[in-house]
Amino acid sequence: MISSKMTKLTQTNSVIRAMFEEGMRLAAEYGRENVFDFSLGNPNFPPPDAVGTAITDILREYPPGEIHGYMPNAGFPAVRAAVAESLNAGYGTSFGAEHIIMTSGAAGGLNVALKTLLDPGDEVAVFAPYFVEYGNYVSNYDGGLIVIPPGSPDFQPSADALEAAVTPRTKAVVINSPNNPTGIIYSKESIKRLASALERRQKAYGAPIYLISDEPYRELAYDGAEVPFVTRYYRNALVCYSWSKSLSLPGERIGYLAISPEADDAGIIAEAAAIATRVLGFVNAPSLMQLAAARCLGEKTDIAAYDANRRALHGGLTSLGFECAFPEGAFYMWVRAPGGDDRTFASDAKKHNILLVPGTSFACPGYVRIAYCVEKSTIERSMGGFARLAAEHGLKWK
Amino acid sequence: MISSKMTKLTQTNSVIRAMFEEGMRLAAEYGRENVFDFSLGNPNFPPPDAVGTAITDILREYPPGEIHGYMPNAGFPAVRAAVAESLNAGYGTSFGAEHIIMTSGAAGGLNVALKTLLDPGDEVAVFAPYFVEYGNYVSNYDGGLIVIPPGSPDFQPSADALEAAVTPRTKAVVINSPNNPTGIIYSKESIKRLASALERRQKAYGAPIYLISDEPYRELAYDGAEVPFVTRYYRNALVCYSWSKSLSLPGERIGYLAISPEADDAGIIAEAAAIATRVLGFVNAPSLMQLAAARCLGEKTDIAAYDANRRALHGGLTSLGFECAFPEGAFYMWVRAPGGDDRTFASDAKKHNILLVPGTSFACPGYVRIAYCVEKSTIERSMGGFARLAAEHGLKWK
Repeated sequence: MISSKMTKLTQTNSVIRAMFEEGMRLAAEYGRENVFDFSLGNPNFPPPDAVGTAITDILREYPPGEIHGYMPNAGFPAVRAAVAESLNAGYGTSFGAEHIIMTSGAAGGLNVALKTLLDPGDEVAVFAPYFVEYGNYVSNYDGGLIVIPPGSPDFQPSADALEAAVTPRTKAVVINSPNNPTGIIYSKESIKRLASALERRQKAYGAPIYLISDEPYRELAYDGAEVPFVTRYYRNALVCYSWSKSLSLPGERIGYLAISPEADDAGIIAEAAAIATRVLGFVNAPSLMQLAAARCLGEKTDIAAYDANRRALHGGLTSLGFECAFPEGAFYMWVRAPGGDDRTFASDAKKHNILLVPGTSFACPGYVRIAYCVEKSTIERSMGGFARLAAEHGLKWK
Repeated sequence: MISSKMTKLTQTNSVIRAMFEEGMRLAAEYGRENVFDFSLGNPNFPPPDAVGTAITDILREYPPGEIHGYMPNAGFPAVRAAVAESLNAGYGTSFGAEHIIMTSGAAGGLNVALKTLLDPGDEVAVFAPYFVEYGNYVSNYDGGLIVIPPGSPDFQPSADALEAAVTPRTKAVVINSPNNPTGIIYSKESIKRLASALERRQKAYGAPIYLISDEPYRELAYDGAEVPFVTRYYRNALVCYSWSKSLSLPGERIGYLAISPEADDAGIIAEAAAIATRVLGFVNAPSLMQLAAARCLGEKTDIAAYDANRRALHGGLTSLGFECAFPEGAFYMWVRAPGGDDRTFASDAKKHNILLVPGTSFACPGYVRIAYCVEKSTIERSMGGFARLAAEHGLKWK
């Protein structure tokens, strides 16, 4: 009785749910403390205290009707202006309030951007490994997904492969840096090469190709690493941001879409995006959280704690003989599956009560994703299981 | 550069924006207190104190990670259970938590329901006058809208007209009671007749037709009027609720979708609706507001104040000779346009600084909508303008 698209999604989802239920079963059988669930990208550190303070202050300072009432679909003008100013101060950009659309998280922003841009049959390119929801978002607007396979062992996006893959129907490219699932930050050099490739294709086709940068992990960069801000390198760029990770507010659904002032049709895109926010049923980003986020623009979650997890996990796994790049951002480690089959390896890991996500779920077999947004003690206690797993696969201590 | 659907919407929107900007211009020229803006359905009374108290208590009682963190896409299990219990206590229904999907307002719920049900080309029937966004929501999923013209002067929905209009491609019927824009409550008799008509068509076609009831105004019923709860009269029913009006929280985007436990495929619909919530980019309804709404299930906004507006406006307008039904619910009055042309009349009204919405915007020419969610003094001060407008149109004092 449900739609055919949803029938397919329901079938896929039952696989994920089976994994989740298996985790619950393991927890019930062995005790939660003996199950090492590295499968979810759910921030485990609470929001900075400034968030609670901001909410409390707003409730005290504003008339309730203003806090919880309607505002323009694009968001409170003052909030949009504050976001624009903060971006301009941080990145030397020239956003005005009119280029910022407040959204229900980055997922909302991506849907608004795709609704705004895509006609049925238009293509959207993504680099594998990629967040599986991109495919669903593009399908919402009857677009086609072009998946560009990973070209190099460092998982930087390949501009050559992109240039070869785009066609006159390609309307947009979605990138994600710091990357889920690899933890890689796309370098300035990579972004510049992507920009040049897209410039050439735009010129050849006589039509814009928009670069949509999904940046929920932007503030989660370690060792002072720079996350290049895409509108500085490419004119037709849109940024989808979320405070889900930077302020540990994933349940609140608050973020924004920033449209480069230099983009072709920037004004029309911004106007259409505000309308898309309305007609998709978001109507507007949640109002109290808009106000709270604007007061916390200088705040971020405790990166040092994620960093400690990163070091502990990377040190532990590499000394056991696992191959994994040292993550530069986000809270994921991307580990080569010993034996080469990621699903078999994830299944083997589960026998040691270790829950991982096979790379196949990100269109990149041969690897597994370990989400280290967990208590540090979980990482420490999991090492026994990882050691047995390494031994079973004939890995050598380093 | 934007999609063709959005290009059309942008053009339509510029008409609405022109109206809004004209209102701003009038306010600047004549002073805000001399402009009578009855065009927006924006609750003017603040939320009950219980909302602020609930938020403050939640911030104090819960760990921040639980308040603002991820939960299942369908919402917090305890919140869903509380909503189900509250419905069961109020309406003698038998919802379980599994039949409730927390949504980003009723607009979010409608989109989730339509995404869940519609294949391209499926039809959705609505009764004119209807909220114009329904057409956009149905178009999001490439469905076709069947508009059933008003059959009787009381604006109750015609079951005969519905039965004649549905086809084997009709997947759903959307109703809205208390109604925007008429202020009418669909009577128990009307709902029973609609149910019988749909039962007959379902049987004839051998496929379910879902009745989707959009109920943001359910708690805004005057004089103790009963708003029939549709799942009691029809098995294949879904209810889209919002706290936007009942708790004056329209900016927060919080509501729920309730799926009748007796509906065909209720379990599959609920599962698919949770996934639709995710893939449409809502991910989940805003978390703090889910918790706050669950604590305010017995609360509602100050109906008495809207009621006073209703009486003042209806008394004033009818004594001036305008023809309008006494609204039973919501905060809209539906007035016959003297002269018969609603757009001309709205334009004439604007000359007296009175802003109304022509019925054409609701697919029902010949009427205008007056939103009386304003200060009572606005209604009182507008009466001079209405009197001059009545005189210009040759209406007679009663």
